Amino acid sequence: MMKLTRLFSRNQLFEQIVWKKAGYVGHPLGSHPFSSNAGISDSTQNFTRTVTKNAGGRVFASYHVYKGKAALSMEPCMPTFTKVESGNFIMDRRGSIMLTFAPAVGERKYDWTRKQLFALSATEIGSLISLGPRDSCEFFHDPGMLSSTAGQVRKSLAIKAHTDGNGYFFSLNVVNKPQNTNDYLSVPFTTGEFSVMKTACSFALPSLLGWDRVTNPNLGVGSVFQPKKIDREALSLEWER
Amino acid sequence: MMKLTRLFSRNQLFEQIVWKKAGYVGHPLGSHPFSSNAGISDSTQNFTRTVTKNAGGRVFASYHVYKGKAALSMEPCMPTFTKVESGNFIMDRRGSIMLTFAPAVGERKYDWTRKQLFALSATEIGSLISLGPRDSCEFFHDPGMLSSTAGQVRKSLAIKAHTDGNGYFFSLNVVNKPQNTNDYLSVPFTTGEFSVMKTACSFALPSLLGWDRVTNPNLGVGSVFQPKKIDREALSLEWER
Amino acid sequence: MMKLTRLFSRNQLFEQIVWKKAGYVGHPLGSHPFSSNAGISDSTQNFTRTVTKNAGGRVFASYHVYKGKAALSMEPCMPTFTKVESGNFIMDRRGSIMLTFAPAVGERKYDWTRKQLFALSATEIGSLISLGPRDSCEFFHDPGMLSSTAGQVRKSLAIKAHTDGNGYFFSLNVVNKPQNTNDYLSVPFTTGEFSVMKTACSFALPSLLGWDRVTNPNLGVGSVFQPKKIDREALSLEWER
Amino acid sequence: MMKLTRLFSRNQLFEQIVWKKAGYVGHPLGSHPFSSNAGISDSTQNFTRTVTKNAGGRVFASYHVYKGKAALSMEPCMPTFTKVESGNFIMDRRGSIMLTFAPAVGERKYDWTRKQLFALSATEIGSLISLGPRDSCEFFHDPGMLSSTAGQVRKSLAIKAHTDGNGYFFSLNVVNKPQNTNDYLSVPFTTGEFSVMKTACSFALPSLLGWDRVTNPNLGVGSVFQPKKIDREALSLEWER
Repeated sequence: MMKLTRLFSRNQLFEQIVWKKAGYVGHPLGSHPFSSNAGISDSTQNFTRTVTKNAGGRVFASYHVYKGKAALSMEPCMPTFTKVESGNFIMDRRGSIMLTFAPAVGERKYDWTRKQLFALSATEIGSLISLGPRDSCEFFHDPGMLSSTAGQVRKSLAIKAHTDGNGYFFSLNVVNKPQNTNDYLSVPFTTGEFSVMKTACSFALPSLLGWDRVTNPNLGVGSVFQPKKIDREALSLEWER
Repeated sequence: MMKLTRLFSRNQLFEQIVWKKAGYVGHPLGSHPFSSNAGISDSTQNFTRTVTKNAGGRVFASYHVYKGKAALSMEPCMPTFTKVESGNFIMDRRGSIMLTFAPAVGERKYDWTRKQLFALSATEIGSLISLGPRDSCEFFHDPGMLSSTAGQVRKSLAIKAHTDGNGYFFSLNVVNKPQNTNDYLSVPFTTGEFSVMKTACSFALPSLLGWDRVTNPNLGVGSVFQPKKIDREALSLEWER
Repeated sequence: MMKLTRLFSRNQLFEQIVWKKAGYVGHPLGSHPFSSNAGISDSTQNFTRTVTKNAGGRVFASYHVYKGKAALSMEPCMPTFTKVESGNFIMDRRGSIMLTFAPAVGERKYDWTRKQLFALSATEIGSLISLGPRDSCEFFHDPGMLSSTAGQVRKSLAIKAHTDGNGYFFSLNVVNKPQNTNDYLSVPFTTGEFSVMKTACSFALPSLLGWDRVTNPNLGVGSVFQPKKIDREALSLEWER
Repeated sequence: MMKLTRLFSRNQLFEQIVWKKAGYVGHPLGSHPFSSNAGISDSTQNFTRTVTKNAGGRVFASYHVYKGKAALSMEPCMPTFTKVESGNFIMDRRGSIMLTFAPAVGERKYDWTRKQLFALSATEIGSLISLGPRDSCEFFHDPGMLSSTAGQVRKSLAIKAHTDGNGYFFSLNVVNKPQNTNDYLSVPFTTGEFSVMKTACSFALPSLLGWDRVTNPNLGVGSVFQPKKIDREALSLEWER
């Protein structure tokens, strides 16, 4: 596998090429819910099948931060809408920013088959984008919430400022009781990387609330995935794994 | 009725599902001016009828904050435009952010039939989005202003920073002399919730001024409600109740 | 003429209605370069005629601040583009934010026939939106710059923070040597009004640079006014008067 | 050549006219990669030819800052996308903000044939837009990175706050070993100019990440250049010279 110089992290322009040339155990796109890669895990197959019926034309774009012990990928998950009698649409489910963590398994080598997901809600994004340079916050999710599996899997995401104020740690802890696992994945962000995340999340937030479609009805909701029935798995992509 | 764990407020993704499963006295969408629900109040029927003629395709999306004593819902109300001789359009009436308060009538149960409205003007939004973490502001509205009913209903909205700088109280007081009522509804916002509101309002503000349609004529004004005659009730959705 | 209560400035929603009911000496829209009102001044007729040929469909929307001694209206003036051989477009002239001042001639009565214009450039907007709560700045324009009339008319716009940090004064001074006039128009802005202006100008700035059309080619430039020949008057709307 | 008064920098509106009237050694648009000017260098011909096949309709717009010793022009370079089996698109290569420096060769005269390029990555833009009024940062690029020419050309861009906090210096140093040259180009930015750059870069950043196309699939990727094969030169516009 090709080895990168320290310049790598300074010229993100080349990042994508490098990933293509290098051989990996899994890939952030490889198990993407909307991709048609063979490596997709069984638990998401139903969901993927539904989406494959979609006419296409959607765009998938993640912002990645690759560090020594883990990598973090993030991308917006759009809200869904329901048509009402009048021919108008009402937002059904708010969007989120999906964070995907993967552990490093060698120098600049990440195992995306062992990924862990964390979907930031609108309010959590609000907390994140208002963090001062020495602030911290922590969010707790239970993918089984409101179901018989409540409490079986507990996820906590801590965002902690570096002590010198130059960046943050994104640390995800996932305790899975049935599988008796306890995963901890931590990715340091520089000030620049956090600034990209803040700017991108601030941009996406009105869309996650559906407000961009209120101010611009031309956007339409046709291209936004609308499940026929309320499907627990579709409702929480965090279940994917 | 289903009881939620404390995780509820942390994972807004599940909020909408929960609301659908629970039984409520009224619903934020139930008496929405653009919905066709039966529970709509008489005073808004004329307005609703007008809008029903609309071809549809609009999107309605609110940001809700549910707390112990009351809930607050907010969404943009777009400006209206008038066609002039040249075939061009001039903004007729600025848009606003409509705040809807509803009192709690039990644990996580809100009575939306007793809602109170407050339409934030562009300048009031400007005040709100420039509030520092320890600032406060207060706005006064008289829905009967400039008419024979002036002074009969007085509304004041106070936005006050928590003493520890971690969030704000949104408190609406409505004094209705003819009905001899004095309603007080207060909803605490966390820093994250206020940050969502600030970001969403900053996003919507140029649209409320019509500037998004100046910079992008493709947006059109066709989908924006244009009353044939100046209708007091249409002009102030605050009258709805 | 109808007299307004102090609530007027608090509920901008009603502003437009009031203006229509009241009788004025001139009107911000009355002498708008793109309107077809009879009251338009001779000096702008050529320019207006050119624009009238336009197919229509444009939207005009100003943000107004009405105060005791003067009123200030602002709106974006979009950039112009030139088609190059390849079928692509290159920005020809940057856009600006046009400020229009009018003196008060009675209680809440403004004489828009005596308006004074000041077109904020991109860099001037940059200065304005980065002003701290106690900062000030001043801009100087010479509409005759680079021509034989250089120095005949001198305009200076001062934006000065209130001493208590709660808002700013926008003060325009226009010295016209040929007409031997010296006009001074000053409008105080509250923190909320300045925040609206900052948010709206920040929103418009990428459009004034043409960057919204770089990131979204669908916007097109067809609806953007493109003068056939370089026309001094079209190039500086400040000449209008 | 026409001489400009100090008012020049204050009224950017006239900037473009002036440039057209004046005679220059080269022009920022003259050697633009997408233009069809004869003066384009051999090394970019392949790339240019590919783009010429494009149906046209794109918009090119730069923000320029002209100072005593050098000029700096900046514009967004959009990301590219790859179509996947499902008919959807995945971002292939992130966009960047291309900075172009040119040395002054006389009073307000710049030699764009001696331009130097520096493509700011998303993360570098993040650093730039989060700079405080007294902060500084430095970026290092090696256009030959990952190839046999690694280390032959070294570029460093320093952004340093003025000691009084009123603006920044943008200083580019390019050491080219094979050509035995060492170019240093420095452009001071006022607070207003830096604010324009920050606002424009913050606006463009979500587009450079492809997130605008995630939230609005209508934007399409058809107009975004998609190279058939991974072409080193196309991948780094910095090679152009």
